[in-house]
Amino acid sequence: MLSTLIELQRLKRLDRTGWTLRGLPNGTESVAAHSFGVCVAAMLLADELLARGVTVDVEKVLRMALLHDWAEVRVGDMPRIAAGYFGAGARKQAETRAFADVVSGLKRDLYASLYDDYEQRTTFESRLVKAADILDLLVQTLALERAGARGLDEFWEVAENPRFQLGDVADKVVSEVFQSVLKARSELA
Amino acid sequence: MLSTLIELQRLKRLDRTGWTLRGLPNGTESVAAHSFGVCVAAMLLADELLARGVTVDVEKVLRMALLHDWAEVRVGDMPRIAAGYFGAGARKQAETRAFADVVSGLKRDLYASLYDDYEQRTTFESRLVKAADILDLLVQTLALERAGARGLDEFWEVAENPRFQLGDVADKVVSEVFQSVLKARSELA
Amino acid sequence: MLSTLIELQRLKRLDRTGWTLRGLPNGTESVAAHSFGVCVAAMLLADELLARGVTVDVEKVLRMALLHDWAEVRVGDMPRIAAGYFGAGARKQAETRAFADVVSGLKRDLYASLYDDYEQRTTFESRLVKAADILDLLVQTLALERAGARGLDEFWEVAENPRFQLGDVADKVVSEVFQSVLKARSELA
Amino acid sequence: MLSTLIELQRLKRLDRTGWTLRGLPNGTESVAAHSFGVCVAAMLLADELLARGVTVDVEKVLRMALLHDWAEVRVGDMPRIAAGYFGAGARKQAETRAFADVVSGLKRDLYASLYDDYEQRTTFESRLVKAADILDLLVQTLALERAGARGLDEFWEVAENPRFQLGDVADKVVSEVFQSVLKARSELA
Amino acid sequence: MLSTLIELQRLKRLDRTGWTLRGLPNGTESVAAHSFGVCVAAMLLADELLARGVTVDVEKVLRMALLHDWAEVRVGDMPRIAAGYFGAGARKQAETRAFADVVSGLKRDLYASLYDDYEQRTTFESRLVKAADILDLLVQTLALERAGARGLDEFWEVAENPRFQLGDVADKVVSEVFQSVLKARSELA
Amino acid sequence: MLSTLIELQRLKRLDRTGWTLRGLPNGTESVAAHSFGVCVAAMLLADELLARGVTVDVEKVLRMALLHDWAEVRVGDMPRIAAGYFGAGARKQAETRAFADVVSGLKRDLYASLYDDYEQRTTFESRLVKAADILDLLVQTLALERAGARGLDEFWEVAENPRFQLGDVADKVVSEVFQSVLKARSELA
Repeated sequence: MLSTLIELQRLKRLDRTGWTLRGLPNGTESVAAHSFGVCVAAMLLADELLARGVTVDVEKVLRMALLHDWAEVRVGDMPRIAAGYFGAGARKQAETRAFADVVSGLKRDLYASLYDDYEQRTTFESRLVKAADILDLLVQTLALERAGARGLDEFWEVAENPRFQLGDVADKVVSEVFQSVLKARSELA
Repeated sequence: MLSTLIELQRLKRLDRTGWTLRGLPNGTESVAAHSFGVCVAAMLLADELLARGVTVDVEKVLRMALLHDWAEVRVGDMPRIAAGYFGAGARKQAETRAFADVVSGLKRDLYASLYDDYEQRTTFESRLVKAADILDLLVQTLALERAGARGLDEFWEVAENPRFQLGDVADKVVSEVFQSVLKARSELA
Repeated sequence: MLSTLIELQRLKRLDRTGWTLRGLPNGTESVAAHSFGVCVAAMLLADELLARGVTVDVEKVLRMALLHDWAEVRVGDMPRIAAGYFGAGARKQAETRAFADVVSGLKRDLYASLYDDYEQRTTFESRLVKAADILDLLVQTLALERAGARGLDEFWEVAENPRFQLGDVADKVVSEVFQSVLKARSELA
Repeated sequence: MLSTLIELQRLKRLDRTGWTLRGLPNGTESVAAHSFGVCVAAMLLADELLARGVTVDVEKVLRMALLHDWAEVRVGDMPRIAAGYFGAGARKQAETRAFADVVSGLKRDLYASLYDDYEQRTTFESRLVKAADILDLLVQTLALERAGARGLDEFWEVAENPRFQLGDVADKVVSEVFQSVLKARSELA
Repeated sequence: MLSTLIELQRLKRLDRTGWTLRGLPNGTESVAAHSFGVCVAAMLLADELLARGVTVDVEKVLRMALLHDWAEVRVGDMPRIAAGYFGAGARKQAETRAFADVVSGLKRDLYASLYDDYEQRTTFESRLVKAADILDLLVQTLALERAGARGLDEFWEVAENPRFQLGDVADKVVSEVFQSVLKARSELA
Repeated sequence: MLSTLIELQRLKRLDRTGWTLRGLPNGTESVAAHSFGVCVAAMLLADELLARGVTVDVEKVLRMALLHDWAEVRVGDMPRIAAGYFGAGARKQAETRAFADVVSGLKRDLYASLYDDYEQRTTFESRLVKAADILDLLVQTLALERAGARGLDEFWEVAENPRFQLGDVADKVVSEVFQSVLKARSELA
């Protein structure tokens, strides 16, 4: 267990390249800090859904949010544009192999199946975590823009028409939250 | 929900003062990055316990690990020595009030009861999260020492006789992991 | 003397949390750098007052400006909002106790009485140092905004009606300086 | 030309992940700073070879050293271990495609042929630039270790038996420089 | 050769003071990263000139761009305003002496004559490198402003009437590039 | 007054180059943070001397410690080695001129005479501030070494035979403090 903990510790220092490549300072956001943000967003979304009568496996949601970026400790946080250069699926395959090695000292099957589920968006929970992943990105972008950052428009495109296929109730909840972020941003200008 | 997400976003930047006060660079570890580490350690510990037949509510463990430091967004990450200057319980009371305000726009009771449980160490799960909190501190300290940091001896004292009152099986598991960290450290010298 | 010097050295690295919690980079301003700024502002204000015939004990002013934040090396730089969570006076009491321990190896009474004077605003000099403390905050905020930072409006509220009870001449001098900072800021928009 | 300059500007901020993943602070070395170091090492090596009668096309050497990491602005600075997860040649192919896009607004063929030469190690000059690439890595590692960094042993393995197939004279020169770095390191312990 | 490489390594960490003195974070741009940018700009300009039939010694251009700031490792990156305090030529003399010491272990005459050429703007190539030096400054400033930085107006004054005395064709090329940077900036507002 | 405050604010961000040139991270110590340290050391030394019956003008000591590095906001924090390249006295002259411009909007004569006194070491107080300047450097170096930094031996040479010509009593006090720093360092190994 220790060697895995030591390796994952490294995500606390690894910069999300999206910010540094756009001129923001090193240390703007680590992969670990982002993963924390995704877990928080995922838990709050899940609890809101539970309150509205939607069935959610919160344990699965939190596990998946926590581990969805672990592969980056071996393949790095590639810029978005990088995916196009590796051919269809090649990046995902590499990340899947890297993830398998990261968890090789543990109950490998448990974590690997959660990771595959997330990558394939098989279950409701995996799609909810993806929504939380985007939500954390938007809230981070909003926070940076409030502090004076500019040139981050491209990150907002994803928020225009969020489609996570979560069913009527959950899609509506997610859509409401996204709209509130967009509204908060429009008040900045 | 958005105002809570925006506020908790701030934990991604807040430095853990333990490192900066000992001369390590700003940005060594944020509260958010530490919380990620505690979640990871808690999940791995919980899964190891499940494999050995111990009953663990993993959802509760992950929720608690995720939120255990949220109050710091309002009261800051106080140095350890600070507790002694606020009188018995005064710091905990302040953090409890701050936490309540952080979650005031949400299902307040759910989160408040998890937080109280953690602060009081009422349940098995809360004591397991405390063990994960210390474990992440030790692994972070080990990582810093491997990278050349010195002067961090005081952080290791807590590892000498870990007593988390988790029952025979779980105490043994935790003790084994702590011993492996201590062993890894002794190989540094 | 050495142990005190070593401990106070740590203020060179401790971030003022006001900036990092609002999304500015780690390392924006240390407590030591702020204390330097307060000393500078206090000396310039005092010399302006002397030139206008006001009696000022400059040595006392500089001593007080220099030591007014030393307690933070033990209790940290708490966010402003934190004060409300510790009950009336509890934070000040804790800081007073922490300060006493910081200077325990020195001529404790001399420094403790200067600190108490500052905390109680007993003398003219202590109120002048408080004005310098706010002035440095405003000049720092202006500098950050000129460099592109946004979202710092709340720091300007304190400048609207500065009341330091320094007597007619000194209040006028302080008011003039504050007005010039506000004017410089209004030219940014 | 401007859009290329703007894009390559981003390499000034992109961290070399080798350092941050081993616990060194963000900002330890950017890809641009490394490229500067490779250019310097390449020029000094080339001039030493010229002095010993070896024919070197210094213009080609400097061009190649300057552009050898430009693809990273699109695919990031992947950790070394990442290569294994992308299958034989897949990473190189992706980088080659990314490089082609970076220079698409320029005299594409000139730069693309220099890049291919470097990737294939076709010419003497490309192998000399590779030696300079490794030499800069070792000198940077030595500088970090002199400043207190630890845990960087794996970077030294590459220096043990440098084989760049530069011919007798040039191999001897490179070997001498590598030996002097190793000697400087051994004096640290 | 090694001692020179070790010394020049230090330029990777030395901040360009122009940014930090205007309130931008430490680590915004190192002297090494700037030198990389000047080399890139110089190569692209030279290749554009070659394509238009202008004779350029590209090897000389790249050598000069690479070494034009090496003296700063001994005298620091002085703020622009500093030159006025050292008397006519005194700063240049000091830098020339410092440069001579930096390269004293190498083929000193080769590098010294390139440095003198650059300082005196004797040749076409030296004036082209000066144009590249300014171009990199403008592109960096543009990148920072796009990311939200403000208060950098003074850096743009130099772009108004670029006069590098490169002859009709080259002056036109440089002027076109400068105009395109100014246009990109005007689109920011 | 405001323009001076704004200009001196910049010292909060200006790195002391001694650390960054030796491979320590940007942000290790700003000129403002160092000035704070010198003020603290100067006050503690002065109070110790007063307690032993030595006459000290503490106001003058604090004023001088506070302003002794203000010229660096215009000429930068030059590396030590730089002095040799500017000819005898040329650096001091430049700094004196720069200082005069920094305070030109204030009671110029007061500050200029304090600065000249410090540069010339005319009075007892100026020599005491010089001792405090060195003391802060040593304590900072000790703190960095305790945190793991290496390669800072040259900074300790100055501590071997401190000669500040402060008279028997004061020289003895300073010598005792320096010995205690050296002793603390020797315990590190």
